[in-house]
Amino acid sequence: MSALPKPQETTPVLTPAELTRRRETSSFWFRMLRDDICDAFEQLEEEAAAIGLYNGKPGRFKRTHWQREEGGGGEMSLMRGLAFEKVGVNISGVWGTFSEQFRREMPGGEKMPCFFATGISLVAHMANPHVPAVHMNTRFIATGDRPVVAERNSVFQEPPGEPSYKSWFGGGADLTPVFENKEIESQFHGAFRATCGRHTPGDYDKYKKWCDEYFFIKHRGEARGAGGIFYDYLVSEDWEADFAFTQDVGKTFLEIYPELVRQTMQTPWSEEDRQAQRLKRARYVEFNLLYDRGTRFGLMTGGNPEAILMSMPPEAVWP
Amino acid sequence: MSALPKPQETTPVLTPAELTRRRETSSFWFRMLRDDICDAFEQLEEEAAAIGLYNGKPGRFKRTHWQREEGGGGEMSLMRGLAFEKVGVNISGVWGTFSEQFRREMPGGEKMPCFFATGISLVAHMANPHVPAVHMNTRFIATGDRPVVAERNSVFQEPPGEPSYKSWFGGGADLTPVFENKEIESQFHGAFRATCGRHTPGDYDKYKKWCDEYFFIKHRGEARGAGGIFYDYLVSEDWEADFAFTQDVGKTFLEIYPELVRQTMQTPWSEEDRQAQRLKRARYVEFNLLYDRGTRFGLMTGGNPEAILMSMPPEAVWP
Repeated sequence: MSALPKPQETTPVLTPAELTRRRETSSFWFRMLRDDICDAFEQLEEEAAAIGLYNGKPGRFKRTHWQREEGGGGEMSLMRGLAFEKVGVNISGVWGTFSEQFRREMPGGEKMPCFFATGISLVAHMANPHVPAVHMNTRFIATGDRPVVAERNSVFQEPPGEPSYKSWFGGGADLTPVFENKEIESQFHGAFRATCGRHTPGDYDKYKKWCDEYFFIKHRGEARGAGGIFYDYLVSEDWEADFAFTQDVGKTFLEIYPELVRQTMQTPWSEEDRQAQRLKRARYVEFNLLYDRGTRFGLMTGGNPEAILMSMPPEAVWP
Repeated sequence: MSALPKPQETTPVLTPAELTRRRETSSFWFRMLRDDICDAFEQLEEEAAAIGLYNGKPGRFKRTHWQREEGGGGEMSLMRGLAFEKVGVNISGVWGTFSEQFRREMPGGEKMPCFFATGISLVAHMANPHVPAVHMNTRFIATGDRPVVAERNSVFQEPPGEPSYKSWFGGGADLTPVFENKEIESQFHGAFRATCGRHTPGDYDKYKKWCDEYFFIKHRGEARGAGGIFYDYLVSEDWEADFAFTQDVGKTFLEIYPELVRQTMQTPWSEEDRQAQRLKRARYVEFNLLYDRGTRFGLMTGGNPEAILMSMPPEAVWP
């Protein structure tokens, strides 16, 4: 992991300069983490190619840049490989003004209608049904009573007086095995429990429960997977501490998930196992399109459908 | 088609007795139409079995009855056959009281919080990619300021004075070909144009436009399929005329769709054609889970997920 820019002291008032520093520091981190994750996953592809179970050449990520009309854009990294049947790793940094309707729906949206959001979002669907699918996302959000990033052709009327901004982190990671695997699940949970334990803002019990509640498929009365952690609106007194925790969530993912892939990707599978995987993936589709806030919000507000739907599994069945 | 109960004269005021007659007459019709459609589809299975392209025994519908806690229930008829890879034909009759939240969202929901809904809903996903998928639904809805059907253990406080009820029809049918087929699409549209032309409430141009607008996948900027007709809140001065139109929409479907299946099911297909079909079906999934009002409303309000998600395609891919 390369070195980060040295953080300045946290200021009690969120000045435009401090906001700029937070924006740039977090964006830079998400990009570095993306590079490290893609490298680690490509390394796993090399290891899969050496196992007799997988046929073909190791996968490599393809990167696509996209821009957003209102402001910002992102990079999608997509790999179709041997162990990774389909994996998408997105980073983005977008800004603008909430629509009139969305302002009314968002708590505080009327007073703070301008936003900036940057983050990394990743979903991996694995070829081997014994290797759990995984999702990881961390993000930094800022809102303000005037543009967080200057917009071209903005029609926004800036209010008089001092600018008012707030910012927070959100994120998490969760595992979706096709077949229950207590050993693997326990290692995943243990890694994030340890990470939460190392940080003042890390409340493992709260974030684990939040994850279980969020990734629940209500109409089926079942969990999407085996859970993990989920947190949002993280804004303690100490921005550096919140950021360090968010970085550590990403680093923990980068350490534990490749390890779990190594432990499971050598297990042979049958066509029955693949069919069980397709059924599980159909539940994943149901969750993402019916309930996932990021997916629905992105698609409903003119986001890039290719980037947003990169999380969809390669195959699903409703027999 | 069997004979319907003789309709009584339309009354200007919607009395409880008149409402009961409408409920029972429409429910009875939807059930008869279901029987006739299932017979016609099983007949097509016999014809498919005689073609060399299809291997195996002709499919037969399996029927499952379900009951709803608050009131009512339905019957799902599901067939996995030769020409019909997966087809679900549902009838239902349900009643109850809208949730407090839903009352505020529904136009007129505060004054008329009690409802009754009966209808037939059908989606057919075909084995042969040259045979278009199809959807058909017709329904009769009533709302009231007191229960439309007496509820067990109701906690609803009936208001004083005369009961107030209203009722309407909705429905339509639309075709989703994998490959554009002008000839087939033109026959489908022509059949519904002719049906609309025979009925005073039948406004073909309006219903065709409504269908195109409703079955549009906004985030993709593309239509779900080739369209058809869609109508809702149909309540003219003459209930018998509205009902006759709704019946004729069902009869038209029963005449035209099997005819289109016969014209296309003898065309051989390749694995590439099947893959194109799986891609098209993924769009169908996106539409149904993100936008379809019936699907979302049903799942969010504790409907039967098996019945509601019978419309999902047997296979879909997001490669």
